[in-house]
Amino acid sequence: MIDRDVPIATGAIPAQTAKRHVYFVSDSTGITAETVGNALLANFPAVGFIRRTIPFIDTVEGAHNVVREIDGVSAANGRPIVFTTVKAAALREVIAGADAEIIDLLAGHLIELERALGLTASEQLGQFHSVGNVERYFARMRAVEYAIEHDDGQSRRALDIADVVIIAPSRCGKTPTTMYLALQYGLLVANYPLTDEDFPTDGLPKWVAPYANRCFGLTTTPLRLSQVRHERRPNSTYSSLEQCTLELRRAEDLYRRNRVPFLNSSTKSVEEMSAVILQAMRPRA
Amino acid sequence: MIDRDVPIATGAIPAQTAKRHVYFVSDSTGITAETVGNALLANFPAVGFIRRTIPFIDTVEGAHNVVREIDGVSAANGRPIVFTTVKAAALREVIAGADAEIIDLLAGHLIELERALGLTASEQLGQFHSVGNVERYFARMRAVEYAIEHDDGQSRRALDIADVVIIAPSRCGKTPTTMYLALQYGLLVANYPLTDEDFPTDGLPKWVAPYANRCFGLTTTPLRLSQVRHERRPNSTYSSLEQCTLELRRAEDLYRRNRVPFLNSSTKSVEEMSAVILQAMRPRA
Repeated sequence: MIDRDVPIATGAIPAQTAKRHVYFVSDSTGITAETVGNALLANFPAVGFIRRTIPFIDTVEGAHNVVREIDGVSAANGRPIVFTTVKAAALREVIAGADAEIIDLLAGHLIELERALGLTASEQLGQFHSVGNVERYFARMRAVEYAIEHDDGQSRRALDIADVVIIAPSRCGKTPTTMYLALQYGLLVANYPLTDEDFPTDGLPKWVAPYANRCFGLTTTPLRLSQVRHERRPNSTYSSLEQCTLELRRAEDLYRRNRVPFLNSSTKSVEEMSAVILQAMRPRA
Repeated sequence: MIDRDVPIATGAIPAQTAKRHVYFVSDSTGITAETVGNALLANFPAVGFIRRTIPFIDTVEGAHNVVREIDGVSAANGRPIVFTTVKAAALREVIAGADAEIIDLLAGHLIELERALGLTASEQLGQFHSVGNVERYFARMRAVEYAIEHDDGQSRRALDIADVVIIAPSRCGKTPTTMYLALQYGLLVANYPLTDEDFPTDGLPKWVAPYANRCFGLTTTPLRLSQVRHERRPNSTYSSLEQCTLELRRAEDLYRRNRVPFLNSSTKSVEEMSAVILQAMRPRA
């Protein structure tokens, strides 16, 4: 599991290993508070942090409970840092009373936005992530199901409606990138593995060739690919550095010959790859 | 496709339909800027917005290009609103010169955080989403593959290592929620459909029964379920209100009898469901 909630030590932490306690407090899922808070904390790589997310704080009572917890930690381990996206003024006042460094990620910007628009914000909770938009919900559901059906070249059904077809040798990151594009942007994404059978050839594999203008290629470094494949099949030809070097060279040649845009996944996160693909696809749509 | 980039009208928009142009400008993927910016915009439901995301602005030249585009829109359509998460001071200065309302989502908070920590931030770009943490990348890849393998009860392999097993009647939102938990939190999530064959019974289906303490149930409203099923198989028994009512009642009874926590997906987004599940699973882990 990726660290969302790291358990909080109850006793005092010895000075030489003292870490700073960080809270993400939200009236909704806590995702925004975590995303922005972590982006800010990343600027202090030398500091150790102990993180805890407290979502769904949408009552005064809930806010008081949070303050009690924070004050307890503060007394034992020093003033925590609290990133909050709670919107209601009554709750923000309660949280502001905690013995902590409060960084309010929304309230100040809301005032800026009110000024920019010349309007007063309507105070409603959790609007953004609410399912309200049923169409968006359906689009994501359809997109995820499409992605599962079309993972690893498993299906040719309805390939013509794909928004993007990701092609790459095995283990270059096709599947997580496909799934992220589906969930985050509701895109219909198929992915197709490039295997030895697809070479030697000058053109794209015949299933995807008709959709060349929607293809996007992935590559990586031979060392990284060998490492990842080794996890799956240790000491095999499949995971050997020679085979990985060969497959990546062939794939990159194929992308270039067919003017398929591609990127190297070895230094990029799934979010970054998705943003690059989205940008590359736009002018061609 | 879910609106990320709505094309920008080049001519002036007639006054009665005038919408406000909004930019999300980032030195990385733009996801943080979009998430926070949209959360803020949601407080002004009466205003129409035309959104455009410009990611990967990490050079002075890139920043100047953004300013040129914004100034062009401003001249034709009024001052846009610009949400920015660009970190480098040199680039922020350039962007601040645009003829727009600039809302800087990070810089001010970074100063607050520097003060709270008594440290100066190290100025590096795009740290947060960087793949840097190879382990996180592997964890997500494994989690997404596990989710695909175990979607809709397709596999019983390695069910014992699942972090969460989502159970629900068909079309209650199991698959997108599973995928979100895998991608966002790196959790190993299986999901299992409750069908007529699982009833009548007092216990959980036998494949999932050994993992009762990791089960989480979904339900929805009969009307919503009927609506969603109707999309797949119109005018079938499967999508009839009677059948949906029956299946949901049975499922909820099953959850209650077996003390499986559950939630109603009809009013919740995938993000909200995932946050609730994560919270419910924690004390039981």
